[in-house]
Amino acid sequence: MVSPNVESTTADSTYTFRNLVKKSWAKLVKVINMVKEIGQDDPRRVIHSFKVGLALVLIYILHHFRPSFYGFGDNIIWAVLTVVIVLELSVGATLGKGFNRMLATGLAGALGVASNELATLCGDKGKVVMTSIFVFVIAERVTFMRFSPKLKARYDYGMIIFILTFCLVSLSDVTGHELLEMAYERLLTIIIGSCIAITVCVFIFPVWIGEDLHNKIAGNIEKLADFLEGFGDEYFNNSENTEVAENEKQFLHKYKSVLSSKTSEETMAVLARWEPRHGKFRFRHPWKQYLKIGNLARICAYKIEALSLYLINSKTPYEFRSRIQESCTNISLESGKALKESSLMIKKMCKSSTPNSHVLNAKNAAECLKAVLRTNPWEGADHFEIIPASTVASLLIDIVICVEQICEAVEELASLANFVPCQLLHRGTVQPISDSDGSVHVVNVNIGE
Amino acid sequence: MVSPNVESTTADSTYTFRNLVKKSWAKLVKVINMVKEIGQDDPRRVIHSFKVGLALVLIYILHHFRPSFYGFGDNIIWAVLTVVIVLELSVGATLGKGFNRMLATGLAGALGVASNELATLCGDKGKVVMTSIFVFVIAERVTFMRFSPKLKARYDYGMIIFILTFCLVSLSDVTGHELLEMAYERLLTIIIGSCIAITVCVFIFPVWIGEDLHNKIAGNIEKLADFLEGFGDEYFNNSENTEVAENEKQFLHKYKSVLSSKTSEETMAVLARWEPRHGKFRFRHPWKQYLKIGNLARICAYKIEALSLYLINSKTPYEFRSRIQESCTNISLESGKALKESSLMIKKMCKSSTPNSHVLNAKNAAECLKAVLRTNPWEGADHFEIIPASTVASLLIDIVICVEQICEAVEELASLANFVPCQLLHRGTVQPISDSDGSVHVVNVNIGE
Repeated sequence: MVSPNVESTTADSTYTFRNLVKKSWAKLVKVINMVKEIGQDDPRRVIHSFKVGLALVLIYILHHFRPSFYGFGDNIIWAVLTVVIVLELSVGATLGKGFNRMLATGLAGALGVASNELATLCGDKGKVVMTSIFVFVIAERVTFMRFSPKLKARYDYGMIIFILTFCLVSLSDVTGHELLEMAYERLLTIIIGSCIAITVCVFIFPVWIGEDLHNKIAGNIEKLADFLEGFGDEYFNNSENTEVAENEKQFLHKYKSVLSSKTSEETMAVLARWEPRHGKFRFRHPWKQYLKIGNLARICAYKIEALSLYLINSKTPYEFRSRIQESCTNISLESGKALKESSLMIKKMCKSSTPNSHVLNAKNAAECLKAVLRTNPWEGADHFEIIPASTVASLLIDIVICVEQICEAVEELASLANFVPCQLLHRGTVQPISDSDGSVHVVNVNIGE
Repeated sequence: MVSPNVESTTADSTYTFRNLVKKSWAKLVKVINMVKEIGQDDPRRVIHSFKVGLALVLIYILHHFRPSFYGFGDNIIWAVLTVVIVLELSVGATLGKGFNRMLATGLAGALGVASNELATLCGDKGKVVMTSIFVFVIAERVTFMRFSPKLKARYDYGMIIFILTFCLVSLSDVTGHELLEMAYERLLTIIIGSCIAITVCVFIFPVWIGEDLHNKIAGNIEKLADFLEGFGDEYFNNSENTEVAENEKQFLHKYKSVLSSKTSEETMAVLARWEPRHGKFRFRHPWKQYLKIGNLARICAYKIEALSLYLINSKTPYEFRSRIQESCTNISLESGKALKESSLMIKKMCKSSTPNSHVLNAKNAAECLKAVLRTNPWEGADHFEIIPASTVASLLIDIVICVEQICEAVEELASLANFVPCQLLHRGTVQPISDSDGSVHVVNVNIGE
């Protein structure tokens, strides 16, 4: 006879088991979705994973069919090590690591053989002391050099490999001819590993980090442009915004990623310098100029961050806001257009004067705004109420300077990188905005940099 | 007979040689100075370099006097490899890498032995096919997983080692009992290498990255405080600033490093989580809260960046500026003090209510400023001229909100990390600033986050 108690325990355990299955299933679905997302975010990642698998299988097959090729069986580890560590997503990173690895192994191997020979001359006990001193001094010095920011950026991996190889060779028990042969064979294996990694990386769907940097900078400028183009309408819109509408306006938040992109841009520029000529990029493409543009874009983004606050709260009543509506909208629209054209110039790699005309329009609009402000448009209004509007005006005038600097830097890039003149960058025509008195003034405000 | 021509050539070559010596000497001096600078910037780097040298000598001596300890001579490379790569400047990074290396080697070794056995069952030709498939699938999947940001942050190194070890074991020519023994011995060597690295790192002048993060966040808040404390005097100073004086005022520029510190803070927080209890830090110290404080400090720094522009150019005439001098100076001074006390709270790890009183003062000063603005202090002035001053007022009011949020986050940290109450944090007394009508208002401005 089954007691009700046992029955309920069985039911309980069935329930627990079901729950467990349910939970595991949910977790599995979550993991699969995450994996899918990673792949969808950047399909090149899927290809890269295949490339790593392929390179390793290639080494295995080479090793299997030509075992005599390697000096002794053990050496395959150096090829595998090299491929696993050297083969990175981008060509720049792979070339940089491969070059570092080969050069460092060669140099450190030679130095190690020399120091090993020298230590052997000192007798058995002397060898222990000498080797200890050599290893200590080299490891200590090179580790210290790794802290130099300049060397770290380009040769960090090489310096690690230098210490490693030097230690391995000088600590080795074999000496003389045998040591030389071993060192030579290891170097050869590492060169083979690096070459396989580089070949697979460059010839099978290559990912050029220089191109990524190029697109990223163009994208960042476009994000700022999106904000500025939308700002005027958004700010001078009289209707109250619901929260749902706020969430839909993604273009007003995209610029935030520009605020913290400094580190990744710098890394990309360092890696891009390793890349050979590819597509429209020369070997000595002016990558540093991208960093300059990136920094100017970031300064502009800081200002936009300050501006964005006034979209949401403490708006000046529309009655007063509307008095600067025309010139402010013009400034933000023309600044946005100038940035968008500059971004297009980078993307298409062609020279155009369209950004300049938009910058000119924006500057004229800024002069108009100043003229409006000089007429005391808010006479009689509560000072406290008009402060947000006047801050927006002031920030917009500053942003024009930023935009001008970005456009100038892009133009500089165009001449450094020999962009070709654009045939027809944009179908729209630029409507000149005349200054209040018809002439063009130069705005003489410096930003504090 | 020596022709004048030859004479001049000799003189030329002497000159060239001298020049060369001079240049080389100048370069050497430059390198030595650079090295000195790196050491002076952070003397812990010098110690770290010594530690790396020491750890490697330790392995060499261990290997020399107990060669039988390692299964076969070749295995020393795994210990050297491990020490060179695992031993990092900070304890967190070393523990993270050591743990990753040991766990990944263990897991991948076991999986590799199993797959090797399985492949051997399939006959000679079958083995090649099976091993290729195994290597491809594992390398492909794990490489793909490395793109997941969450896994990458903590286990990137482990995943590389996993691929590496799996490939080495499954590609190995030896099988059966011999393979097991080899895998076991390599694992042992890697554990020995990791332990040596960890021991040297933890017991000889350890560098705790958690402490670094703690000090960095406190330092960042202090930098903002320095700016705010100095801003009032600087902005309302009637005299023209010379450029020399501008350069001396370092405190006005220090905040700039806060703008781009996001990436390094995040890395530090990930590494800090590996560190055991040390000094005043528990094992599960709330490192995430530091990131929250860091983000709030950065938002404040963006506003300060906007504010800093008005120190240099387009100042409102002093006549009009002076009308908001008192309340603006109070806001910036009290905000600065609140941040300085918060920074001190973090540094000394003790709870105090002093920051709150300063925040209260700053809020009262903001209310005063609003009251002043409501009286239309600039009646009759040129609107365009007063815009910079009103922008400064508006930004300062916004900054008070930011400062309050930072102080709240610091207080949250104090309760999460169980800070003890301060005995006497600061000798000064807080002078309450009364609101215009004597009561305390709550400022209801939301920042757009």
